[in-house]
Amino acid sequence: MIKKYTYGNPFFTESVVASFEASEGMPEVGTVNLDDGFSFLYDMKAEDAVYGLGEANRGINKRGYKYISNNTDIPNHHEDVYSLYASHNFIIISGERTFGLYIDYPSSLVFDIGYTKMDELHIFCDKADLDLYVITGESIYDIVKQFRQMIGKSYIAPKFAFGFGQSRWGYKTPEDFAYVVKKYRENHIPIDMVYMDIDYMDHYKDFTINEAFGDFSEYVEELKKENIRLIPIIDAGVKIEEGYDVYEEGVANNYFCKREDGSDFVAAVWPGYTHFPDVLNPEARKWFGGKYKLLTDAGIEGFWNDMNEPAIFYTPEGVCDVKEAMREFIDKDESVDDVWGIRDMVADLANNAKDYASMYHNVNGKMVRHDQVHNLFGYNMTRAAGEALREICPEKRCLLFSRSSYIGMHRYGGIWTGDNKSWWSHILLNLKMLPSLNMCGFLYTGADLGGFGCNTTRDLLLRWLALGVFTPLMRNHACLGTREQECYQFEQIEDFRHIIGVRYRLLPYIYSEYMKAALNDEMMFKPLAFEYPEDRMAVNVEDQLMLGNEIMIAPVYTQNAIGRYVYLPEDMMLVRFKAEGDIEQTEMKKGHHFVEVPLNEVILFIRKGKCIPLADFAECVADINTKKLQLLGYAGSSYQLYDDDGYTRECNLKMSRVIFNN
Amino acid sequence: MIKKYTYGNPFFTESVVASFEASEGMPEVGTVNLDDGFSFLYDMKAEDAVYGLGEANRGINKRGYKYISNNTDIPNHHEDVYSLYASHNFIIISGERTFGLYIDYPSSLVFDIGYTKMDELHIFCDKADLDLYVITGESIYDIVKQFRQMIGKSYIAPKFAFGFGQSRWGYKTPEDFAYVVKKYRENHIPIDMVYMDIDYMDHYKDFTINEAFGDFSEYVEELKKENIRLIPIIDAGVKIEEGYDVYEEGVANNYFCKREDGSDFVAAVWPGYTHFPDVLNPEARKWFGGKYKLLTDAGIEGFWNDMNEPAIFYTPEGVCDVKEAMREFIDKDESVDDVWGIRDMVADLANNAKDYASMYHNVNGKMVRHDQVHNLFGYNMTRAAGEALREICPEKRCLLFSRSSYIGMHRYGGIWTGDNKSWWSHILLNLKMLPSLNMCGFLYTGADLGGFGCNTTRDLLLRWLALGVFTPLMRNHACLGTREQECYQFEQIEDFRHIIGVRYRLLPYIYSEYMKAALNDEMMFKPLAFEYPEDRMAVNVEDQLMLGNEIMIAPVYTQNAIGRYVYLPEDMMLVRFKAEGDIEQTEMKKGHHFVEVPLNEVILFIRKGKCIPLADFAECVADINTKKLQLLGYAGSSYQLYDDDGYTRECNLKMSRVIFNN
Repeated sequence: MIKKYTYGNPFFTESVVASFEASEGMPEVGTVNLDDGFSFLYDMKAEDAVYGLGEANRGINKRGYKYISNNTDIPNHHEDVYSLYASHNFIIISGERTFGLYIDYPSSLVFDIGYTKMDELHIFCDKADLDLYVITGESIYDIVKQFRQMIGKSYIAPKFAFGFGQSRWGYKTPEDFAYVVKKYRENHIPIDMVYMDIDYMDHYKDFTINEAFGDFSEYVEELKKENIRLIPIIDAGVKIEEGYDVYEEGVANNYFCKREDGSDFVAAVWPGYTHFPDVLNPEARKWFGGKYKLLTDAGIEGFWNDMNEPAIFYTPEGVCDVKEAMREFIDKDESVDDVWGIRDMVADLANNAKDYASMYHNVNGKMVRHDQVHNLFGYNMTRAAGEALREICPEKRCLLFSRSSYIGMHRYGGIWTGDNKSWWSHILLNLKMLPSLNMCGFLYTGADLGGFGCNTTRDLLLRWLALGVFTPLMRNHACLGTREQECYQFEQIEDFRHIIGVRYRLLPYIYSEYMKAALNDEMMFKPLAFEYPEDRMAVNVEDQLMLGNEIMIAPVYTQNAIGRYVYLPEDMMLVRFKAEGDIEQTEMKKGHHFVEVPLNEVILFIRKGKCIPLADFAECVADINTKKLQLLGYAGSSYQLYDDDGYTRECNLKMSRVIFNN
Repeated sequence: MIKKYTYGNPFFTESVVASFEASEGMPEVGTVNLDDGFSFLYDMKAEDAVYGLGEANRGINKRGYKYISNNTDIPNHHEDVYSLYASHNFIIISGERTFGLYIDYPSSLVFDIGYTKMDELHIFCDKADLDLYVITGESIYDIVKQFRQMIGKSYIAPKFAFGFGQSRWGYKTPEDFAYVVKKYRENHIPIDMVYMDIDYMDHYKDFTINEAFGDFSEYVEELKKENIRLIPIIDAGVKIEEGYDVYEEGVANNYFCKREDGSDFVAAVWPGYTHFPDVLNPEARKWFGGKYKLLTDAGIEGFWNDMNEPAIFYTPEGVCDVKEAMREFIDKDESVDDVWGIRDMVADLANNAKDYASMYHNVNGKMVRHDQVHNLFGYNMTRAAGEALREICPEKRCLLFSRSSYIGMHRYGGIWTGDNKSWWSHILLNLKMLPSLNMCGFLYTGADLGGFGCNTTRDLLLRWLALGVFTPLMRNHACLGTREQECYQFEQIEDFRHIIGVRYRLLPYIYSEYMKAALNDEMMFKPLAFEYPEDRMAVNVEDQLMLGNEIMIAPVYTQNAIGRYVYLPEDMMLVRFKAEGDIEQTEMKKGHHFVEVPLNEVILFIRKGKCIPLADFAECVADINTKKLQLLGYAGSSYQLYDDDGYTRECNLKMSRVIFNN
């Protein structure tokens, strides 16, 4: 059951598609106080766990920390970080009373989940203008399903997007991209996509291609012949440059975000000074989305939207203040406070709250200050693309994912979890985010495998890939200036071929489970707690996940480990993809196990009485023979396989067939 | 067997006390190349593990990453950090061939341990002026013992220093300190020390007390009546201020580090511009050490030396360059590169290599450029104090520990592992450093419990304290501006009283094992690999340690965990200190176990056939009744207890007695 409570005058975020009558009075759980903004208090019991928040830091169980919904370009995901790139305000409290809460509020919102007081859940924000949904149900999972139905169907990616992709900030010329393709293909490491980071553009101008490419559509076509799709990045900021059509059209039609005085808001990002398309304005959104056609016309079938928190490096106003402060500093006998003051002031130019408070949207003719709707920008930039692509290519799905998001965006695209690091702890963070993202409708998702920032190591990449084998988005991506981390850069390339090869062999299963989750409003990845709520041990597992209805995954995420502990909440079949290609299946009993996992192996666990399909090795998605599948798992079981052409927009579970493991 | 190889003209670091004839020719392991600086290469076997490096990042097994010996004031100990506050150039390669390497070289030195190439150990530095020691022996542990004998006996702390201490940057007045004492005492949480961070001084001037204190010695005496010792910080930089005697004496006698032109080198730290005492100059060292008497005369019995990498916030020369760059920046139409350029330039003022290259020491009349001996500064600052304190208080031990260090300093004081964070991962990092620090002679050591930077949480602090129960230095310390984390700031204070109470009950054992390790050149904390080298599982355990000869520890280091997996390499007795005060002993079999550990319990494992002494609860070290001990563990076993008055400098294992567990 879903009850909606409306406070003040909420901004219409369109995150919820179902409509609900607002209930009167107080919610039956917790205490709402409107004396000073909005505050929701709930006394947690000692054993209560809290799930959700989508892309958020820390555990599967969110208890014991503080989280702030405030979309931020933050490349350093330390344990103490409160805000990441996205705001997904849905949580479930599980315990004596189990219920879900969705707070539809697009500005800064704090979830203090037993951080300040060990047993207190406190949700609060400055303005009491929001919709609160309280969801009760038969189980945690029932609540998730109700929520998912309320927010609408998840985006469905084309099948090629389930292949492996290589990315790196720094690829610039056709030769750069061709080299990557050549190395993967000649080493027989499967791959379907090469991502184009900002340097493919002409001076970072959206919807342009740098001159090195010559005839871009010809180049796109050439790579497609090798079953490689190029996936360009699109940034939020439109370069200010006379003669650049996107800029000129935007200015002429008032499609950019404004300052209070009505002039176009200016912020520096990669191209230098830019304007932001006002994606909260339906007309501007339509216009900006239409620009993607410049690239689809060249044969492009997928995009990633970036910098759409929106990130701001600095504004002219901020720089002006800094220069004034520098003038004073120059004339001073500097003290420690002076030096640190100027240092912090320059560092704080980026993503400064003051700038977000001086930017405006035109929402149906009304000026809305950006900071009051901040968390909707990435959502609506991706919505712009999603809506446009549906018109541009009505006959087929396009790949689309975003860095920043809010619930509602899950209907238009996926997300990657932003600029992580080559840290072992980020493998685990990647795993922990998967179910919470699924709870919020984000199914097409994954992290930068191997880590974006910092220098990776061979073993880190291999272990991370062995998790990435299971995530819909499987991409190796790294930052300019870091160690080169394409799989062919390392010793014993056959290990990489093997691990990514396992992904391609499992792809029919992964695609099938993804599609079922999308079409049935299910979670593809679940915490064990959702499947085995009565098993106290399972409920507390933070480093294993259920994938679909058939398998459990338990990746290794520590360096120099020979294996890891795994808890089996029921009897399961350990499947081991050995480096030489052999597959070993071992029945294991419910309980605790130490499982050895060499660096070049992938393991998974099949639930009792289940089986999964396995294809032959292939080097690209198009070459996977879904007619020729073997089954792994328990004899006498069956599996319902969903499959399709990989691009039709009209998907239906009737397209699935049952296959038997005799 | 120890073989010494001398290359070029090594700087005499005095880290080694034994003398060795230099061997001719190539070492029998690895390949030395002197073509371009110094390079040592060794082909590791797939199964080789590498131990050591003292205070260093990452695992107990150091394989798979890169480490740079370059003492750095670095508060952010991320996984990707190569250098911390200390340089401890001792490693052991364990495998088909097992041997130790000590590279006595006081400047920047790289250990690439299978990072660039998976099987290659590569040690290198710019200048081939160093001593290389190759140590072979019967076992890993035999090599450690030989090394420890070669570098001389470890510092021995007074017994009170094994009590619990509270610290926070921000305590300033007598009232601040008295309040901490009052809250601990009235809540009956055991405590012996309150640490004085920089604000106790008069404008951060070393060896001064701010005026709020009035008669400081009276105040010190007053707290001692409550069995509380104040432990002041001493920073490396001496404030430049006319009329400040330490400054004036230093200038008059040329006791400060110099610029190339012979003027006193100037660097800003907390007091603003300062000079650094030239602790590599024996005369200056003696002078600086003598200053500690100003505080011991007031009754002070312990010190922590800080900022002695030495940290530099900026220099006048650096600021001058920045101001020049600012002038140019102000006149520019700024680009992204301009803004980031100036941002980075200001940020890079701190700990800048250019500054370290323009500072000089007077070593026996010879000017030595600081960057060539950089890693010796903290060592010699602490040596200054240690040598002086031996003269000032010949009759009793003083507490002394340092942030920065080099091997050799272990003879003069302990270390704490610097400015960590309130991160769960730092509990594990704390654990992993303990045995490697012990390998290098550092026995009196510990981390800032609860985390120095960032906001702690109640559960994090409790779990970290439950590890701190076992570390010689047990201190809760936090940074200005973070959440207050004294134990009385949290709910259910009884849990803190209990956990710290367990420390005091175990203190006779911890002190005894520490003393045995110090007097016998043993490790107090060992990786399981050192005790059970034939047990493949034990060899790979990275989150448990052996403590002394009797126990194994296995702290919980993840949030919301109900327990953890523990590997028992032999049958052991699980001892559980329950919150209500009960002690539960359970025999457990060799093998894998999941052990539940509530937040308010401490567990440890006693090895088969062993026992350990346990005192009654006490609120300060002086009140621990070592005559009234019970024994935990296996019936029929015995324990050799070392005990003494806690301050005598002439310690001897003859002072130990055997007690029987009947």
